[in-house]
Amino acid sequence: MEHIGEFDLIEKLTSLIDIKDSSVVVGFGDDCACVNINGKLILFSSDIQIEGSHFLKEKISPEDLGWKLISVNVSDIVACGGLPKWSLISIAFPKETEISFLEDVYKGIKKALDFYSFSLIGGNTAKANQIVFDLFITGETKRFVPRSGGKEGDILFLTGHTGLSRAGLELLLMEKKEYEDWEKQLISFHTKPTARIDFQPVVERFANCCIDVSDGLAGDLGHIEKQSKVKIILEKENLPVHPLLEKFCKKYKKDPYEYILFGGEDYQLVFSISKEKAKEIKNAYPIGYLEKGKGLFLKEKKNIYPIFPKGFQHI
Amino acid sequence: MEHIGEFDLIEKLTSLIDIKDSSVVVGFGDDCACVNINGKLILFSSDIQIEGSHFLKEKISPEDLGWKLISVNVSDIVACGGLPKWSLISIAFPKETEISFLEDVYKGIKKALDFYSFSLIGGNTAKANQIVFDLFITGETKRFVPRSGGKEGDILFLTGHTGLSRAGLELLLMEKKEYEDWEKQLISFHTKPTARIDFQPVVERFANCCIDVSDGLAGDLGHIEKQSKVKIILEKENLPVHPLLEKFCKKYKKDPYEYILFGGEDYQLVFSISKEKAKEIKNAYPIGYLEKGKGLFLKEKKNIYPIFPKGFQHI
Repeated sequence: MEHIGEFDLIEKLTSLIDIKDSSVVVGFGDDCACVNINGKLILFSSDIQIEGSHFLKEKISPEDLGWKLISVNVSDIVACGGLPKWSLISIAFPKETEISFLEDVYKGIKKALDFYSFSLIGGNTAKANQIVFDLFITGETKRFVPRSGGKEGDILFLTGHTGLSRAGLELLLMEKKEYEDWEKQLISFHTKPTARIDFQPVVERFANCCIDVSDGLAGDLGHIEKQSKVKIILEKENLPVHPLLEKFCKKYKKDPYEYILFGGEDYQLVFSISKEKAKEIKNAYPIGYLEKGKGLFLKEKKNIYPIFPKGFQHI
Repeated sequence: MEHIGEFDLIEKLTSLIDIKDSSVVVGFGDDCACVNINGKLILFSSDIQIEGSHFLKEKISPEDLGWKLISVNVSDIVACGGLPKWSLISIAFPKETEISFLEDVYKGIKKALDFYSFSLIGGNTAKANQIVFDLFITGETKRFVPRSGGKEGDILFLTGHTGLSRAGLELLLMEKKEYEDWEKQLISFHTKPTARIDFQPVVERFANCCIDVSDGLAGDLGHIEKQSKVKIILEKENLPVHPLLEKFCKKYKKDPYEYILFGGEDYQLVFSISKEKAKEIKNAYPIGYLEKGKGLFLKEKKNIYPIFPKGFQHI
């Protein structure tokens, strides 16, 4: 398996499955699938979180884990222009798992459900060697916003800072005896991300294409570039650099753009909008634009360099 | 965790979550959750299958595994009176897993999707120590048939033989060098069960309550008894005994009723129907009736014994 990535595998396997159902608006290959039920566009998505791959039990509080599980799934719904509606959870765990741990995960889940205003309505549990959480989430949108809708001339917007989660993860993995306050803040970007549900009305109304930044800005823009069949130019001076990331990179002698472009799990949204509508957008960073052609490029003053999206590996 | 069963745990954890959404017709505690979307009753269910807990990789062909994954999920939809519509799959596996294995699982999935006539429209993959398949399935019904709808005077029907899957599993675990043809047949009841989608119209139209027999007839009737608040009388002479199970029990000196009552994973349906409508039912076995009171009982000639549902442990 080592020579084949997650995305290649999904493509290979799903090529075996054909969808004949005309109520399916969108199948594989986007953040959500979408079906038409009596005129309503209903979104479906799922995201599995596995101990050791997606989280380390001793490095995240159970409440944060529950919060994060819900947030990463809400993020997929919002990226397609939707609001979350109903969800189901599958949990599997070794038999020595403490009940108090699972209760605390559920407390985090409950907080997140309240925050994002939707319901958990079902689930099942099983035994496993590792802790596994798989959330199935549904949503609703008036307009499905695909990865493939980007158009030449569109302006590209980013809803917030990227790279913070990866810096936070690296700090966590340093296993320092004590963390300074600003380091703890960075860590919390990794352990307690918030899906940008506040941007859902904007995405639903205006965006031509949208994706959430889960695998790294470059990696996720790679999907937009491929599926929208456009060339993407990022303007380096417009990429927001968070002061805490600057501080981190100075201290540990790192390049912040390595984090901004390739760090995963920030759960910001990146979307494109026609030039005319771009003035409607507030509080998001215009980080570049789409052109005819293909490839992902970084523009620095007058120079333009290609960026090669690296697949993000969790932990 | 050893002192608490799966069902207790789900109850304990879900008691923390309250559902405020008025479009939710049924939440936790049945084979499916159900929501009302613009007048359509949409069913949701999920079932996780984990290597070592639900299947042994060397004991089931990958194609059968794919078939079974779909079938056990369809069974939950049918048990609520619905037909399957759309599904999503989460798969996780160790990195040394052969691609050909996963491809063969997908072939089984595809065969089952074609057989049951519905679509797989999304999914995600991840790394894990064990192979994990989690299917999320949706369905549609004109009338939600709950576990809680059983009424005094109802006749209880069973759609087919139970106990075969457990006998098949025991044969598999004997690791015999060679199996006789009739033993292979029993094994295939375990490795390739078929959901009783043929009974969906009957359940949707007539059943007061229904459940699929995944955890054993007694165990699953325990849910009906509890949730319908009725007493259930099973008539021993009406419980169907499959000739292959008889043969197995004779050879291995076992009591067939131990298998019929407590063997899991048969994926037959058991449902109750009012006396008046019971004459409409063809091809199902009338195995007993519901009375005022509580508890599950086995009637043998003039004697009545209580049955204590044992929780079924997978493998």
